[in-house]
Amino acid sequence: MKNYTHTLLGGSVAAMLMVSSASAFEALPNEVPVPADNPITAEKVALGKQLYFDPRLSIDGTVSCNSCHNVMSSGTDNRATSVGVNGQRGGRSAPTVWNAAFLTAQFWDGRAATLEDQSKGPPLNPIEMGMPSAEAVVERLNAIPGYVEQFNAVFGGKDAVSYDNMAKAIATFERTLITRNSPFDRYVQGDEKALSAQAKRGMKAFEKASCNACHSGANFAGPTSLPMGEGFYQKFPMIPGTKYDVQYKLSEDKGRFEATHDEADKHMWRVPSLRNVALTAPYFHNGAVETLDEAVRVMAKTQLNIEMSDQDVADIVAFLESLTGEFPVITMPRLPDTVGSSLVGAQK
Amino acid sequence: MKNYTHTLLGGSVAAMLMVSSASAFEALPNEVPVPADNPITAEKVALGKQLYFDPRLSIDGTVSCNSCHNVMSSGTDNRATSVGVNGQRGGRSAPTVWNAAFLTAQFWDGRAATLEDQSKGPPLNPIEMGMPSAEAVVERLNAIPGYVEQFNAVFGGKDAVSYDNMAKAIATFERTLITRNSPFDRYVQGDEKALSAQAKRGMKAFEKASCNACHSGANFAGPTSLPMGEGFYQKFPMIPGTKYDVQYKLSEDKGRFEATHDEADKHMWRVPSLRNVALTAPYFHNGAVETLDEAVRVMAKTQLNIEMSDQDVADIVAFLESLTGEFPVITMPRLPDTVGSSLVGAQK
Repeated sequence: MKNYTHTLLGGSVAAMLMVSSASAFEALPNEVPVPADNPITAEKVALGKQLYFDPRLSIDGTVSCNSCHNVMSSGTDNRATSVGVNGQRGGRSAPTVWNAAFLTAQFWDGRAATLEDQSKGPPLNPIEMGMPSAEAVVERLNAIPGYVEQFNAVFGGKDAVSYDNMAKAIATFERTLITRNSPFDRYVQGDEKALSAQAKRGMKAFEKASCNACHSGANFAGPTSLPMGEGFYQKFPMIPGTKYDVQYKLSEDKGRFEATHDEADKHMWRVPSLRNVALTAPYFHNGAVETLDEAVRVMAKTQLNIEMSDQDVADIVAFLESLTGEFPVITMPRLPDTVGSSLVGAQK
Repeated sequence: MKNYTHTLLGGSVAAMLMVSSASAFEALPNEVPVPADNPITAEKVALGKQLYFDPRLSIDGTVSCNSCHNVMSSGTDNRATSVGVNGQRGGRSAPTVWNAAFLTAQFWDGRAATLEDQSKGPPLNPIEMGMPSAEAVVERLNAIPGYVEQFNAVFGGKDAVSYDNMAKAIATFERTLITRNSPFDRYVQGDEKALSAQAKRGMKAFEKASCNACHSGANFAGPTSLPMGEGFYQKFPMIPGTKYDVQYKLSEDKGRFEATHDEADKHMWRVPSLRNVALTAPYFHNGAVETLDEAVRVMAKTQLNIEMSDQDVADIVAFLESLTGEFPVITMPRLPDTVGSSLVGAQK
């Protein structure tokens, strides 16, 4: 409780004490982690943005990164599971791309260490973008003069147009997708009025229930001090067999085990960020839970064995809503053209 | 030939004579046609842009206007036919949205008089966006607080959130999607150097072959003086039974007849614009022709009974490439959120 005694005190003392609570609650840092071998440049961001929005990275020209991770919205498609090429449905709910740059492992099961690694997955996934091989993607990029020119300018050298460089460009664009200055961030930076009374109660309830045992750090996804690729995992459901587990089939997917086949990884999941969580319904790896208040109830019961009161649920929801940040204004990319023919036109 | 004798003369005389050819070739006018009951305002454009990019106008949240009419690209999806919800394929190729504001009828068969009318079609088409009714669309819009607020601000009055007003906003955004200042436009406005020698030859060949009998006017889609909704139609193929007709199954679709069931409309089609045609492969109502040069050969033979020489085809293609305009820089819309739940999340 001591971290929150400041809300009972006068303003100036409160502000002083709030500093002492910085270890529990933190604003997003000013800098995103950037791999040494993939520095951010404006040209690389521009190229990555084009690639991110380009449906020609899918076999039939209908699915781009943005189709399931919508930058104009919550960074997700707000569906339980996504739709890939040929109407195929995925098995897990699309996580948001916003602030993914702060995660220390990617995908629900953490099977990719970096944004670069992650971005190489969907184009080749048969039920997502359906390209037959990395070579086929590179061949397509090489058929688009504007891309060849930009890859050469950004990466230079032999084989500038490569699958690895595509991934580097997309990851670089994604590192610009940060939502700062949420009411929560403004609050922890000293603006007492940034949070409503209910959100402040929710903040206390969140900590009292130990939600932040896992949803810790500036991104509410575990310690940001972990080296990139380390990941921060937790079992879910921690308590199998609850009514929620049965109703929402939470245990059907074995999580990280599916990637590692290590018994210790059964039902282990990367702890997801809670930033903008109010906008990313439906919830959990299978998108089975449709509302945020129900998601809070499920987490309280399945992870902490708490039957949470309606008041606490409502307060925590108000707190979680305060994690919605400001979305930067972004200009649309112009996708480089092919002249006189189409790369996806033959897909009847 | 007289319209083009200027290319054989010196610069100043050429410039004078070029004015006399203005009746044959025209730059895009400065103003788009705007219906009296739907004036353009910045707020309406902003609302229309959000709606245009919002996949929640489709039943499962996967298809927006932009999915098939991609504003970041050619205004099409560069596919033979498009993919709607549940992997369903349409029967006709998506026309470009760029400069559609200048067309005097919409859809391949001209069955919509205005952009407003056109935009009401796809959301309710079962194989496109698949919404069950206009009421269902309005219900969804009413469930998004940001839309309710904007519809009220833009349209005011009772029932500001309506299907008609949705259409008005989308049409208003589309009226901003104009590509001016193509090499062709700069040429007819007096910049002799804007076109290559080959494009100039192609311009002559285009006129000599009477391509502009139908592809006339500033939008290369027929007289712009026609009242909105009148439309400008032509039979295609004019000469049935050619090898191209057989190979590309051009006669399979009866065109405007399918909409009117009037015998006189059999195989009649709205004359499509040629602006940016180099970017909109594959070609024709069924997207069966994959390259622009083949499309030129097909048109010469099926419409004009001309076996066109490779040189003329190449020259006309160069001219058509000069119709590619400048695409304005557009900021991405932020789609208004629903907080704590999703309107499309239940679509498993």
